[in-house]
Amino acid sequence: MAICHQSPFKLFTTIPSSSSSSKPKPLLRCNLSLPSRPSLTSTEPEPVYTSVKAFAPATVANLGPGFDFLGCAVDGLGDFVSLTLDPQVSPGEISISEISGDHNSKKLSKNPLWNCAGIAAIEVMKMLGVRSVGLSLTLEKGLPLGSGLGSSAASAAAAAVAVNEIFGGKLGIDELVIAGLKSEEKVSGYHADNIAPAIMGGFVLIRSYDPLDLIPLIFPDGKELFFVLATPEFEAPTKKMRAALPAEVGMAHHVWNSSQAGALVAAVLQGDLPALGRALSSDKIVEPRRAPLIPGMDAVKKAAIEARAFGCTISGAGPTAVAVTDDLERGKAIGERMVAAFLKEGKLKAAASVSRLDRVGARLVSTIPR
Amino acid sequence: MAICHQSPFKLFTTIPSSSSSSKPKPLLRCNLSLPSRPSLTSTEPEPVYTSVKAFAPATVANLGPGFDFLGCAVDGLGDFVSLTLDPQVSPGEISISEISGDHNSKKLSKNPLWNCAGIAAIEVMKMLGVRSVGLSLTLEKGLPLGSGLGSSAASAAAAAVAVNEIFGGKLGIDELVIAGLKSEEKVSGYHADNIAPAIMGGFVLIRSYDPLDLIPLIFPDGKELFFVLATPEFEAPTKKMRAALPAEVGMAHHVWNSSQAGALVAAVLQGDLPALGRALSSDKIVEPRRAPLIPGMDAVKKAAIEARAFGCTISGAGPTAVAVTDDLERGKAIGERMVAAFLKEGKLKAAASVSRLDRVGARLVSTIPR
Repeated sequence: MAICHQSPFKLFTTIPSSSSSSKPKPLLRCNLSLPSRPSLTSTEPEPVYTSVKAFAPATVANLGPGFDFLGCAVDGLGDFVSLTLDPQVSPGEISISEISGDHNSKKLSKNPLWNCAGIAAIEVMKMLGVRSVGLSLTLEKGLPLGSGLGSSAASAAAAAVAVNEIFGGKLGIDELVIAGLKSEEKVSGYHADNIAPAIMGGFVLIRSYDPLDLIPLIFPDGKELFFVLATPEFEAPTKKMRAALPAEVGMAHHVWNSSQAGALVAAVLQGDLPALGRALSSDKIVEPRRAPLIPGMDAVKKAAIEARAFGCTISGAGPTAVAVTDDLERGKAIGERMVAAFLKEGKLKAAASVSRLDRVGARLVSTIPR
Repeated sequence: MAICHQSPFKLFTTIPSSSSSSKPKPLLRCNLSLPSRPSLTSTEPEPVYTSVKAFAPATVANLGPGFDFLGCAVDGLGDFVSLTLDPQVSPGEISISEISGDHNSKKLSKNPLWNCAGIAAIEVMKMLGVRSVGLSLTLEKGLPLGSGLGSSAASAAAAAVAVNEIFGGKLGIDELVIAGLKSEEKVSGYHADNIAPAIMGGFVLIRSYDPLDLIPLIFPDGKELFFVLATPEFEAPTKKMRAALPAEVGMAHHVWNSSQAGALVAAVLQGDLPALGRALSSDKIVEPRRAPLIPGMDAVKKAAIEARAFGCTISGAGPTAVAVTDDLERGKAIGERMVAAFLKEGKLKAAASVSRLDRVGARLVSTIPR
C-alpha cells in the first residue's frame, strides 16, 4: 500500500521540508495489505492539513518480457510534491507555484492541465468532490525527464497521494492509480506499469484495466535485490520507442515471451534472483526492436552480464539500462562497467546508481496540521 | 519430484499389482526439492528389480494463457506401465506384450518405435546405456486417447520412470522429461507442457528447451483446488487444433495474454483461486480459435461460470473442458452443468469428473525385487 492512511495512527508530525536532493525520510511506512477504500464523493471532504509533502519513487516498467503490464519501484530516487491550502487559488482548483530540479525540469508546464502532477491532482480533486478549497502545488523533480525511470509517473503519484492525504486519505489505491493514469495517458499512453508501482511500491502486475486489476507481487523479505540503473545522456522519446514496436508478433515469439513473463513473476514471488535475471534478459519482442535505437545498449547489457549481473534489459522505454544483482558492491562494479560500455560503444556519457526495491510507493513525508 | 529414488531409502516392498481401474497407492511419495541427477551412461547399470509398475497422472496443459508452456497434473486419472526383465527379449530392447484399456486403446501400436510408452522407454534405456538386458512392457491405459488430458504423456512418463527405476533410478527429472519429449514430438510436437507435469507433478512452467528450464510452481499446501474435467465423445485431433492457431498475434493481444500468464503464475503460487480462475478464463489468442471447433464449448464454459466455477477453458488441445473450484460438491454440480451444456448446445454426450491437483507425478506403485 502506497498511502499511509494516518487517520487511525496519528503518527505524523511536522518536519522541515527536505530538499529535492536529500533522501526522503518517511515518518510512517505502511505495508501492502491494507485494502483499497471506496470512493466517497457524495460529500465534500474537509482538509485535515494546512500543508503536506509527498514523495513518489522512480519505477522500472516492462522488465523485459513484462512489457506494458509489469513494473517495480526503486528506492532513493523520485519526485516530491508539496501542497498548501491557498486562499489565493480559486476554490476547487490547483495552481502550480514552483517546479524545481535539473535544467530539464524547466521544460515542464506550470499549467496544471499540461503538467503530470497537475493532471493527477485535478483528477483526485474531482474524485473527492473538492469544490471549496484551492491548492497551491510545488513540484521538486528528483528524476530526469524521459529517462525510462517513470519520471512522469512519479510526479503524478506524488501529486495524487498529496491531494488525497490533505483531505484525509479517503480514496483507495485503485482510484489513485486511475487518477495517475489520466496523467500518464497524456504523456506515454494509458499504461499503468509505472504509475501503479509508483503508488503501490514493490512489483505490480497490471492484469486488466476494465475492471482495473492490479496484482502486487511481493518479493520475499530478507532477500537482497539491487537494481543497477545506468542512464546515458540521450533522449529516447517514448513515442519513438513505441513506434519501433512490431504490430504483430509471431506465435513462437508470443509463446516464448509469455513463458518468460510467467517465469519472471515466479522468480519475483520466490525471490529467485538468478531466475529473475534469466527471464528479465530474455525478451525477444520489444528489447530487440528498441535496443538498436539506444547507442551502445547491446554492449551495456553484455558488460552487465560479464560483470555478473543476473540479468539486464531496457528500463521502460529507455534509455536507462537496468541490471539486477544481490550485492551492493557488485552492483557498483556492474554500474561502472555499464557506464564504460555506454561511453565506448555508444559514445554516450552515462551515470549509474544502485537502488534497492522500494516496497512502499508514494507516501507523505511531512505534514503541517490545521 | 516425480521419481522416488528409493535407493537411499529402501522403502519399497513387493505389493500385488493393482488393476488399472483402481487408484494408485504409491509406497513412497517424494517431494519436489530433490535435485536432478546427472546422467550416468558410462557404465551399464544393473537392474535392481525383476519387475516394476509405474503410474503417471493425467495432465491439463495450456491452462488458457499458459499455451504451450504451462501444465499441471491431476489426481486419480492416469496410465500404468509394468516392466519385467525378460530373457525372451533381445538385450537392450523393449517388447510391448500387452496394451489394455478402453476400446480405443486397441488403436495403439505394439511396435515400441510407434508407441508413446515404447519410445520413452527406449530413450531412457539409451540414456542409461542398457545393452545387456531386455524388457517386456505392458501398458494399462486409464486415459482416453485424444481427450486433451495428456494421454500420450502419461504413457511416456510412466514408461520413462519405470525403466529408470528398474535400473536404480540413476537419471534425473530433466533427462526423463527429455526422454518423454522424444515421444511427445512424434504425437503432438516438441512441447513439454504435458510430459513435464506428468513426470514432476503439480504445476510446471517450461521456460526454455535449450537449455531445458523447468520451473515447478508450488500451489500452497492446505488450499483446496479441484479440477472439473468434462470430456465429450468427440475427437479433437491435436494437429487440427494446432492448425487452427494464428501464425501471428496482434501486439495488444500478446500483451494481454502475457499479463494473464503472469497473473496465472502468481495465482498458483499465492493459492488465489478466484485470481487463478480469472486468468484461466481470459485467453484471447488460442481458446477463441479452438473453442468453435468443439461443439458446445462456449456454452460449457458459460455453464461452468454460472455454476460458480472460478474459471474454465479448454484442457490441452481439447475436447475436454476444465473448470476450477475449491469445493468438491460444487465441483460435481459444475460438472453436471458442463455435461448438460455439451449435450444441449453441442449435441455431444460427455462425462465429468472432479480431481485434485496431483502433486507427485509419475511414480512407482509396486516392485518385485531381484
